[in-house]
Amino acid sequence: MPEKSYSDRFTRRGLLSAAGLAGAGIALPRRGVAAESTKPDPAITEVQDWQRQLGEGVDKRAYGSPSKFEQHVVRRNVPWLTAAPESAANFTPLHALEGIITPSGLCFERHHSGIAEIDPQKHRLMINGLVDKSLVFTMDDIRRMPRSSRICFLECAANTGMEWRGAQLNGCQFTHGMIHNVMYTGVPLKALLDEAGLRPNAKWLMLEGGDAAGMNRSLPIEKALTDVMLAFAMNGEALRPEQGYPLRAVIPGWEGNLWVKWLRRIEVGDKPWAAREESARYTDLLADGRARQYTFIMDAKSVVTNPSPQAPLRYRGRNVLSGFAWSGRGTVRRVDVSLDGGRNWKSAQLEAPVLDKSMTRFYLDFEWNGEELLVQSRAMDSSGYVQPTKNELRKIRGVNSVYHNNGIQTWLVRGNGEAENVELG
Amino acid sequence: MPEKSYSDRFTRRGLLSAAGLAGAGIALPRRGVAAESTKPDPAITEVQDWQRQLGEGVDKRAYGSPSKFEQHVVRRNVPWLTAAPESAANFTPLHALEGIITPSGLCFERHHSGIAEIDPQKHRLMINGLVDKSLVFTMDDIRRMPRSSRICFLECAANTGMEWRGAQLNGCQFTHGMIHNVMYTGVPLKALLDEAGLRPNAKWLMLEGGDAAGMNRSLPIEKALTDVMLAFAMNGEALRPEQGYPLRAVIPGWEGNLWVKWLRRIEVGDKPWAAREESARYTDLLADGRARQYTFIMDAKSVVTNPSPQAPLRYRGRNVLSGFAWSGRGTVRRVDVSLDGGRNWKSAQLEAPVLDKSMTRFYLDFEWNGEELLVQSRAMDSSGYVQPTKNELRKIRGVNSVYHNNGIQTWLVRGNGEAENVELG
Repeated sequence: MPEKSYSDRFTRRGLLSAAGLAGAGIALPRRGVAAESTKPDPAITEVQDWQRQLGEGVDKRAYGSPSKFEQHVVRRNVPWLTAAPESAANFTPLHALEGIITPSGLCFERHHSGIAEIDPQKHRLMINGLVDKSLVFTMDDIRRMPRSSRICFLECAANTGMEWRGAQLNGCQFTHGMIHNVMYTGVPLKALLDEAGLRPNAKWLMLEGGDAAGMNRSLPIEKALTDVMLAFAMNGEALRPEQGYPLRAVIPGWEGNLWVKWLRRIEVGDKPWAAREESARYTDLLADGRARQYTFIMDAKSVVTNPSPQAPLRYRGRNVLSGFAWSGRGTVRRVDVSLDGGRNWKSAQLEAPVLDKSMTRFYLDFEWNGEELLVQSRAMDSSGYVQPTKNELRKIRGVNSVYHNNGIQTWLVRGNGEAENVELG
Repeated sequence: MPEKSYSDRFTRRGLLSAAGLAGAGIALPRRGVAAESTKPDPAITEVQDWQRQLGEGVDKRAYGSPSKFEQHVVRRNVPWLTAAPESAANFTPLHALEGIITPSGLCFERHHSGIAEIDPQKHRLMINGLVDKSLVFTMDDIRRMPRSSRICFLECAANTGMEWRGAQLNGCQFTHGMIHNVMYTGVPLKALLDEAGLRPNAKWLMLEGGDAAGMNRSLPIEKALTDVMLAFAMNGEALRPEQGYPLRAVIPGWEGNLWVKWLRRIEVGDKPWAAREESARYTDLLADGRARQYTFIMDAKSVVTNPSPQAPLRYRGRNVLSGFAWSGRGTVRRVDVSLDGGRNWKSAQLEAPVLDKSMTRFYLDFEWNGEELLVQSRAMDSSGYVQPTKNELRKIRGVNSVYHNNGIQTWLVRGNGEAENVELG
């Protein structure tokens, strides 16, 4: 029996369910971490198939793939969220990740006209507008320039957007999985702009994609000259097609929609373009009908990934709670974790490396004896900003928007170990 | 015409050729980095196919894969090196990598009975021998213990082994590609040994694999208690089958053969086992017939990956030289690069993060005007050790061994930009 119940404190999530992914009813052995080898265990006493026969040779997979036993660890689409799979999102399975690198095959992706499959030999990047000379770069041109690598997160402005009106999707893959954290490699945008020569009235850039949508966004020149990278590689290899192969913008700490993929043109201008994606979309509609526009920075945020609806507790006794924290304003300084819905907090352990504008891994060891938990995490960043509750956000921003929700997430963990997305405000 | 020639200084590589992978004859445009957009460029003036039509939707690839235009970036086997593909190696394409993370699909692999495909539900790790109690761990047991992640390199002791007798394989994938650098996640071996309780005479461990080879190696207890990890994840996701799914040993800085995969048993003893892989193999036969045994540590080493035989220079003018350095004794402190076979050296730029027992990326910007180059790199580590020349190594260790060759590598770059493995001693 649960030792205490939180059922008076939370609102259950609505009827929306991504795919009924929460764990089925499970037995909950209470055991030490390892069993003494006194009872015969067929996994030990019997010779297994893989000890009897030769496995596959190295000639079979020049490019490797995961074990067949890991086929449940995939990106997942939520079909009812968007009109068609070509203008949709695929969510990162955060609950199944370790460390801070998102594997390239599992990286969140979002498209507006599907995945452009571009021949890099035929790809060009043009810079025009308020420059001394318009320039055209081949991929070879870009690859001969001084490059650098950095690990940083890309988060969609709409990540956690369904939560504005209350607990909805059941699983951190769906509530928080519009994010990935990757080692990107590329050249500083500043180097290309220097080559073109900026006119004195150059204040904004327009980045345009080479896909059929021609997705475009406006970017202030100050950010462009600070840390924006034009990336051709991720996690050591060429960009994946769904991440903009052969060239994408990397705009550390700013919303993912700005990170234009299949980048083909940069126009230099003196004011923002008010393109579709920054007027009809990616503006934050407030309660009074006004809208916040050009809200680029992703504020400090965190989520507990284990336990969570897709990763229930399966054993009493020793357990490790874990999750991610990040901030578009700098580094994560501290993450506090509550197991009782915010009444008591403990500081989690942050794992090195803790990097600027990168996801940071946190851990909290705890004992679980079958009591109900209301699990929360709260991030603090190097600017002093503290992640707010959802209700604190709603007071200021209303519930019309789907963007920039960085409120504290709550999971209810029941006595059987299953977890559920609940609304605690 | 080359401005100078080094043909009097080097020995050409022998007849061994992995696959004839050096670039074919190529035109060498001398151009600035970007062209001014004055001439019509069909890649700009014509609408491309990927701008006309919808690309693939997010419902097609739950687990992503590289672009079809990157099919040349793969691991490669050298069939004549070993008897069969099930007891062979697959080499990392170092020349095609960026940053410091090796993508999991491109990670060096070596097997003795092929790739065991293990069901994690049926996998057990037993600890027995000189312990207070023998223990058996399931994968769930291990996953509930406090874990950590770290980026570190795995290098096979035989990496660069063909070079003892002179320049051989043509391409850094083949001369230096028995290495990968990965963010591994797992639990400290010390935590499991503490749970079993070490007897006072416990001095060595024997790690045994669950594959058909039952590959086993002896490990000194001091190392086991310091930084050895039992890993279940790499680069954010479960271990790949060819890297020991579901559990492998991670032994930072020490030769890869010790990093036992598909780990099923650890026996605690008071002396090394003198197993096949540490007597008939992985000993270093000296000129006088004696052999160095249990030579675990991988000393400081580096290689220029660009330019190299698989990555020729394609343009005169501005170019970026790049490569990797690493040391099993600590961090890389400095990498010097020579373009003239060791007469003059320049310090390369090291890219952050520079991590303990991890590969480190270095860069050197240079101008190339078609002259012949003899490209070398020389690593220095935090212990003060300096990477030696091959001849300095041969004086001490002879040429009988195939192991622990960390000598300075030389690439000849010809006037047409093609590069070749040459012997400079």
